Amino acid sequence: MPNIRLIVEYDGAAFHGWQLQVGVATVQGELQAAIETFLRTSVSSLLASGRTDSGVHARAQVVTFVVPELPDLARLAWGVSSIMRGKLAVLSAEVVPDSFHPREDAVSKRYLYRIMHRYAPAVLDRGRVWEVQQPLDLERMLEGAKQLIGEHDFAALRAAGCTARTTVRTIFESELSCVGPEIIYRVRGSGFLRYMVRNIVGTLVGLGDGTLCDSSMAQILASKDRAQAGVTAPPCGLYLESVQYEQWRDTATGGT
Amino acid sequence: MPNIRLIVEYDGAAFHGWQLQVGVATVQGELQAAIETFLRTSVSSLLASGRTDSGVHARAQVVTFVVPELPDLARLAWGVSSIMRGKLAVLSAEVVPDSFHPREDAVSKRYLYRIMHRYAPAVLDRGRVWEVQQPLDLERMLEGAKQLIGEHDFAALRAAGCTARTTVRTIFESELSCVGPEIIYRVRGSGFLRYMVRNIVGTLVGLGDGTLCDSSMAQILASKDRAQAGVTAPPCGLYLESVQYEQWRDTATGGT
Repeated sequence: MPNIRLIVEYDGAAFHGWQLQVGVATVQGELQAAIETFLRTSVSSLLASGRTDSGVHARAQVVTFVVPELPDLARLAWGVSSIMRGKLAVLSAEVVPDSFHPREDAVSKRYLYRIMHRYAPAVLDRGRVWEVQQPLDLERMLEGAKQLIGEHDFAALRAAGCTARTTVRTIFESELSCVGPEIIYRVRGSGFLRYMVRNIVGTLVGLGDGTLCDSSMAQILASKDRAQAGVTAPPCGLYLESVQYEQWRDTATGGT
Repeated sequence: MPNIRLIVEYDGAAFHGWQLQVGVATVQGELQAAIETFLRTSVSSLLASGRTDSGVHARAQVVTFVVPELPDLARLAWGVSSIMRGKLAVLSAEVVPDSFHPREDAVSKRYLYRIMHRYAPAVLDRGRVWEVQQPLDLERMLEGAKQLIGEHDFAALRAAGCTARTTVRTIFESELSCVGPEIIYRVRGSGFLRYMVRNIVGTLVGLGDGTLCDSSMAQILASKDRAQAGVTAPPCGLYLESVQYEQWRDTATGGT
């Protein structure tokens, strides 16, 4: 039975996160229903490269499922996008080896976080950015972002109820840039703990606005203490940008 | 009586264009009402750098009005933005000389147009881009964009009912670039006829998709015939980016 891989874009505001929950709209639940409606058959439970939390967007989430027989993949992409009516779009659909697993085979993931840094409220980017008004020391933020690169214990930046076996992760890229009034944070890592990117961004802003004036990112990491880090940045500014795989390096970047 | 200049961002989808009309929400009408509500006084009719059509966005429209006495400008910006509840934001407010006129003193204006070029429907950028699915010859489009630079008679690219005295305008910059699945067109000119930017973009897409395969942009301009040009691109992809003035060069770019 063919193993199908989809690259999907979705609007986090339209869903209560990836994972199936009874009684609320989740990406997993709605996408599975749309696929089964279009194909008029049951498919295996959808697998993804990882769960995105409620409100978090995806530019190129990687999803797989097994179907009884091979469908027309272009029609599947078009049909599922139509059913999802602007909340989710299928950017590509292809057959992958049975052994391919979107989470276990992922080599790294790339996230992007958008901060709108100005006094005026967001208009054209409303609900797509974290709106930060206070003055920020960009130098301290740039330094903090740089100190995240490498293998570290991220215990200080995990979610309160995080039960991961190990909190050690490797960050390959971590950089801040400014585009007009926007501050954009890009990070690529071997994996991320729950809320980790949002806690990184909240901590960078805490370093920038002086809330965390007595410490550096390196000291916060070394403390392994969540209380030393900053707030959890809101989900609306966070985008799962792409997932990298050995065999398909740089293909899971969405688009065209 | 002080002459106040605002830089405002607005979501074109929330208004029936700039110009005051009875019975529908326009930027001019709603913004004037918000200013008068906040200041609890009448102000002169709002002037803008130009009218934006229904559905067209602005990142930095320039607006002036005269008030009986000088208000607290930071509070005015904050208060008016609050009243406009996410549809419009005041990015800056300042006193300018009585003689300053946002349209007559403008040296040039910059517009940006976003095309989402892929099969899948837009999700995160829905309503903010023109969705184009057909294959495009980017080389022909780049060439067409380049041929617009300079002083030309734009009669072929004006709106059907355009009554401008002269259709000659000067284009200082005209360039296409690709960012992922997006094609972005940037243009700066001495002034623009009604629908001119949208007709330029529709013509560039016509050159790219082969609809206008027998002609070049230069030939279309030379014809002075609207029927030789392409369709009018939809307003949702168009953004008034900034307005340039002699004295305030490059300040009207919004942000921070």
